Amino acid sequence: MNMLDARTEAWNREALMLPIWWQEDSLFLLDQRAFPFEKKVVHITDIDQLCKAIVSMQIRGSGAIGIAGAYGMYLASRSAKTCEDLESAAGKLIATRPTAINLRKTVEEILQASCNAQGDWRTKLEGSVVAILDRQLAFERKLGSFGAALLADGDSVLTHCNSGAYAGSGYGGRALSVLRSAWEQGKKIHVYVSETRPYLQGARITAFELGQLGIPCTLITDSSSAFLMRSGKIQKVVVGSDRVAGNGDLVNKIGTYMHAIAAHHHQIPFYTATSSHTIDFSLATGDGCPIEFRNQEEVKHIQGVPIALKETQALYPSFDITPNELIAGIITEKGVITAPYSQNLLVLNN
Amino acid sequence: MNMLDARTEAWNREALMLPIWWQEDSLFLLDQRAFPFEKKVVHITDIDQLCKAIVSMQIRGSGAIGIAGAYGMYLASRSAKTCEDLESAAGKLIATRPTAINLRKTVEEILQASCNAQGDWRTKLEGSVVAILDRQLAFERKLGSFGAALLADGDSVLTHCNSGAYAGSGYGGRALSVLRSAWEQGKKIHVYVSETRPYLQGARITAFELGQLGIPCTLITDSSSAFLMRSGKIQKVVVGSDRVAGNGDLVNKIGTYMHAIAAHHHQIPFYTATSSHTIDFSLATGDGCPIEFRNQEEVKHIQGVPIALKETQALYPSFDITPNELIAGIITEKGVITAPYSQNLLVLNN
Repeated sequence: MNMLDARTEAWNREALMLPIWWQEDSLFLLDQRAFPFEKKVVHITDIDQLCKAIVSMQIRGSGAIGIAGAYGMYLASRSAKTCEDLESAAGKLIATRPTAINLRKTVEEILQASCNAQGDWRTKLEGSVVAILDRQLAFERKLGSFGAALLADGDSVLTHCNSGAYAGSGYGGRALSVLRSAWEQGKKIHVYVSETRPYLQGARITAFELGQLGIPCTLITDSSSAFLMRSGKIQKVVVGSDRVAGNGDLVNKIGTYMHAIAAHHHQIPFYTATSSHTIDFSLATGDGCPIEFRNQEEVKHIQGVPIALKETQALYPSFDITPNELIAGIITEKGVITAPYSQNLLVLNN
Repeated sequence: MNMLDARTEAWNREALMLPIWWQEDSLFLLDQRAFPFEKKVVHITDIDQLCKAIVSMQIRGSGAIGIAGAYGMYLASRSAKTCEDLESAAGKLIATRPTAINLRKTVEEILQASCNAQGDWRTKLEGSVVAILDRQLAFERKLGSFGAALLADGDSVLTHCNSGAYAGSGYGGRALSVLRSAWEQGKKIHVYVSETRPYLQGARITAFELGQLGIPCTLITDSSSAFLMRSGKIQKVVVGSDRVAGNGDLVNKIGTYMHAIAAHHHQIPFYTATSSHTIDFSLATGDGCPIEFRNQEEVKHIQGVPIALKETQALYPSFDITPNELIAGIITEKGVITAPYSQNLLVLNN
């Protein structure tokens, strides 16, 4: 059994929900497009197949994509004859998602650690891959523990979209790490999961992950959160983050901003769970971030079924911007940052 | 051609979207459950068939149900021998929807006008039915005209759920009457239609009605309104109303409250279109109104397709309460009422 096999065995004992894993000399991943109705295991035998899996969103989430990159480098090393072969594999992996900074950084780190170092590059590479996997898991546990301290026993917590185990190392990604950590500490929390139209990541993935962990949860439409807040049913909001600007503005899945305004209106603390590496200091405010408008057909269909006439026009802004004044704290693996963000986030900039 | 036939002909010329109509000695209605993908005309030949259509929601909306009651009385009068037969028909109609106050009032008014009056009851009944239809249409046009005065040329207006033509006389019901009236006055408005999960009345009905009228509209997910407000894309919000309390609190489709909070946060005026008869003076505040929680399966399925696992718990509060301080004005057929509502609504209480 090699080091990666051993890790998989250990992580399964720790009830991690692995999006991708090494087992008996092979790489496997779960096709996340089939969630939650099917657990479809895909056997990955070469780097091209892995690249296709990343492009086609069988695996998704910045943490999980980084891990896939690490496994990809290991897979490539087994057939590689020279470091040039490894470099070619690295190029292919990075090209699958040109904007995925975590993927690029991970792959380049492995290349650096193996080919630019002294000694046998194969051994170096394996060590580097294992270190990266361990680091991602440690990151989620630390982030989770800092976030869990913000939740009280008995709290009901609203979360939006998916920022969970299968998007990360298998522990809990970002938002789910906070919830999981609180639950593991024995805090009896309840989670309200907003379905997250149009793609329903909340209904399809977050509710599924919480169910696997045995954390009590209730699925709601995105439009129900304010009503539940007014009824005293929600004490905290915890969401993930796609990007955080230097002033603390949050760019995240469409709908995040509505929940944040509603939380603010009801004086309910709203937190985002992120990584210190996700803070984009080159972005002064969230308004500097271009918002992607995706294909309107995604709004007009649900799971392939049409909900409006063909001739109806629709609009799908896929992200929104939550200004820092609505955010009670930014949870990172280095601690919880509070306002004034422009000043306090600087401790992460190193 | 009798009076009812003549009305139908005139209304079709005025581009009304009739939910139910009399034509060539027969009653017809559109099966609203088939909207927007199919225009399914149902031929109604007796009162029992009409009662079934009301119970099964082939026809819906308080205005349209009242009109159905009026047509039902006319239909019954054609085979009725005595006023006792009419009373029996009235009882059947009222029993289809025990909580539909407008239906009960309409049917009782017709009974009163025909059987308790002097002269030939058949003639009296026909006159009374025509008067009720005319009154409903006049109500919508008046309400629309008061509301239209609040909209400026070039405004983009957010609306939620459906409070439209097929729920009323065919002109525009409540919220749609305001939009239609502004459009007919030549104001170049644009409407953002929130899809209104879980039942998608916005996507299925409101977008369809606006399309038929040629009013430019864009369908959005319920979670997108705050983002669009922050982007300066929405100038006004106009929604219908299920119930208004004596203090102006609004009870309406789930999601209304989220849009109202977001509008308030962005200093965008939020209006509700209602009827003076919908103000419930026996209800001191909105919080006194019990909120119906409907079957959770309605959240977990969209057009029959599951979006979450069977074992996932869901919650479907079907209405929410928007407190009066978030409401810029209550549009009625007697004018627009503004704060302080507890005082100013009293002018309608007669």
